[in-house]
Amino acid sequence: MAFTDRIENAISRTIYKGQKAPSPGKLASALHYSVSPGGARIRPKILLSVATACGDDSPKVADAAATALELIHCASLVHDDLPCFDDADTRRGKPSTHRAFGEPLAILSGDSLIIMAFSVLTEVAAIHPDRAINLLRILAERTGMPNGICAGQGWESEDQIDLSAYHRAKTGALFIAATQMGATAAGQDGDQWDELGSRIGEAFQVADDLRDALYDEMMLGKPVGQDDLHGRPNAVTELGVQGAIERMKDILSGAISSIPKCPGEAMLAKMVNSQAEVLTPMKWRAGHSSRVPGE
Amino acid sequence: MAFTDRIENAISRTIYKGQKAPSPGKLASALHYSVSPGGARIRPKILLSVATACGDDSPKVADAAATALELIHCASLVHDDLPCFDDADTRRGKPSTHRAFGEPLAILSGDSLIIMAFSVLTEVAAIHPDRAINLLRILAERTGMPNGICAGQGWESEDQIDLSAYHRAKTGALFIAATQMGATAAGQDGDQWDELGSRIGEAFQVADDLRDALYDEMMLGKPVGQDDLHGRPNAVTELGVQGAIERMKDILSGAISSIPKCPGEAMLAKMVNSQAEVLTPMKWRAGHSSRVPGE
Repeated sequence: MAFTDRIENAISRTIYKGQKAPSPGKLASALHYSVSPGGARIRPKILLSVATACGDDSPKVADAAATALELIHCASLVHDDLPCFDDADTRRGKPSTHRAFGEPLAILSGDSLIIMAFSVLTEVAAIHPDRAINLLRILAERTGMPNGICAGQGWESEDQIDLSAYHRAKTGALFIAATQMGATAAGQDGDQWDELGSRIGEAFQVADDLRDALYDEMMLGKPVGQDDLHGRPNAVTELGVQGAIERMKDILSGAISSIPKCPGEAMLAKMVNSQAEVLTPMKWRAGHSSRVPGE
Repeated sequence: MAFTDRIENAISRTIYKGQKAPSPGKLASALHYSVSPGGARIRPKILLSVATACGDDSPKVADAAATALELIHCASLVHDDLPCFDDADTRRGKPSTHRAFGEPLAILSGDSLIIMAFSVLTEVAAIHPDRAINLLRILAERTGMPNGICAGQGWESEDQIDLSAYHRAKTGALFIAATQMGATAAGQDGDQWDELGSRIGEAFQVADDLRDALYDEMMLGKPVGQDDLHGRPNAVTELGVQGAIERMKDILSGAISSIPKCPGEAMLAKMVNSQAEVLTPMKWRAGHSSRVPGE
């Protein structure tokens, strides 16, 4: 089954379980709304790519890991869009969760999705208890304080930002989780996969800066210029557009060099290489007309 | 070691780990602020009481379970106090987290505490993997959708409330978690402990209605009359003060009858009985002058 189908099916099954009656219908709807239609599902796709490169001997465990990671990502988008953060009216081309359901249900949706992410991993403990525990550990590490996306968002409230820690936590953390969890789900040592995730995260950060600077709201389905607006550091401001694209390509080359020995090493290198294409905004690609998917 | 010391030490150790540098200092402070000074720590105390009644053969696992449960409770208080929910300016006699640190850090504190709760349970997997997995499963079940406290809060956004599901999720869920997790941490079957937790939760709901109706802001350290304000159901409105106190005592008697056979059955019955005293607002107690601790 293609990665996209595996991911969408696994997410749908998980969300559906959270809707069993009696449950508050609006919150149940808000959960479904917050995870669909999906964006590019980049993180779970990387996770499944790494799991596949490592043999993917237990696809149910890999699917649960991919679902958990994407649910955390969706939760972070719902909370980041709130008025007190980015105050985003739209996301993925439709009203943001708080715009569609109100702030209380948006906050509860984020909370519920975080919890659901951990829950879905406990469900595969019957198959591989050791892997489930390690997946839960990695997910918590890359989501919370002091190294996860919560910490990353937290840095934005500081007067003095540790830029390296900020980027590693804000954007890098879930990519590191993607590669570590992919390997772990397939029974390999996740620690060896830290660098690959970290470098993909750096490339993604540059790509996000490019998109944020260049795209109009209709193309992305979310408001643009948020970095400038909030005074966050930005690779385009620092290097210019072409400089930022070159840096992204350099980072992805480094990512390929860092891939640990595994049966699917060549396939994985190809996947990483293709990210340069996927991540470069359309108007800077030669002879390419597809849009860059919104997150 | 007394339950209070065990709980405070375990929570402090966990929060401290989340503050290791480099981490965003304000969020780290907000986490500490949101869990201290503690309220009555009723849920972790019930958890440790049940673990003790079941033999408490692995205190580190029980301490982790107690910490996880209290962190979830604190997270729920931080998010429930936000302007879009209860809009509470004070909590435990000091400014609520969003009043002290702003809304962004309050939302991130809640998120981080939820994640930390799951994280602390993964750390005891090396001691008892099976118990850790079951504890994680129970915590997720009683925290998220459709049966946990998120669902409970979610019911308040519905036009038609299923009152039984609402109370069981909103107030009952973490008491059910307390008894189930206490038994599980000591290697017993948590499912048998559902009813005790559920009944303690019901008693607590009535007690909370009594306090909410009777206490002034200075005594509780939080604004009163929130139920009336938000149109939520209330036992005092329904039964009057004496009727509500009688109902609470009846519920606790039922709780005692439901205690499963275990070495510490008598001790546990005594603990439950003492809750009637603890939960009854001071002005309705004969010859008693201590205040009811705020949550």
